[in-house]
Amino acid sequence: MPSVFTRIIRGEIPCYQVAENEHYMAFLDINPLQKGHTLVVPKQETDYIFDLEDKVLSGLFVFAKEVAGKIEKVFPCDRIGITVIGLEVPHAHVHLIPIHEEKDMNFSGPKMVLSAEEMLEIAQRLSEA
Amino acid sequence: MPSVFTRIIRGEIPCYQVAENEHYMAFLDINPLQKGHTLVVPKQETDYIFDLEDKVLSGLFVFAKEVAGKIEKVFPCDRIGITVIGLEVPHAHVHLIPIHEEKDMNFSGPKMVLSAEEMLEIAQRLSEA
Repeated sequence: MPSVFTRIIRGEIPCYQVAENEHYMAFLDINPLQKGHTLVVPKQETDYIFDLEDKVLSGLFVFAKEVAGKIEKVFPCDRIGITVIGLEVPHAHVHLIPIHEEKDMNFSGPKMVLSAEEMLEIAQRLSEA
Repeated sequence: MPSVFTRIIRGEIPCYQVAENEHYMAFLDINPLQKGHTLVVPKQETDYIFDLEDKVLSGLFVFAKEVAGKIEKVFPCDRIGITVIGLEVPHAHVHLIPIHEEKDMNFSGPKMVLSAEEMLEIAQRLSEA
């Protein structure tokens, strides 16, 4: 069965898209730790990030760098933190989170609940940045 | 002033080394979240990971993949989690942490305190893996 991210990539499930190219896609995390919290995924469905071929792995982080640049423009921060956990969805994904301090990327902390309108507005601002 | 990681790379400050090549180095985090928690750094001193040129950034994660393979061999786990925070030491570094569940990579949680002998043994096992 295709992963939820593959279904998003195929357009079968909607997302708040931030960026896309031939091999990668970025969209908002629906349970963000911070405003601008974005997921970056390879279109190739692979569960574990370190099972990606070197070329795909490299490209993923180069694409993440572009997306991080967008997030920083829209949400001024100290830097964009990176986390890859990967225990929930079996499709490699990189969390990009704008942070001011370490606790801003604490996954044990509370997630934000944003309205669909607010998510859409954030995704639009990021995609245009 | 050179970063503490540059001083480690130069051999001015000791570390528990795990792996090294021309452009990158891996050594144990001295305040590990889990046994096998390793830092991977580019030898080129750059504060923010997304300021690395694409080639150096790509190579960093390909090197991290090699190191992750070593950690998995020595410390069986569900996978190797990745975190880049970067607020403490102004030299880009990737945390590689063997995890079974999300909370295994919670930086707000307690750090382990291991003896120098144990750290040395872990580094040796990883470097030989």
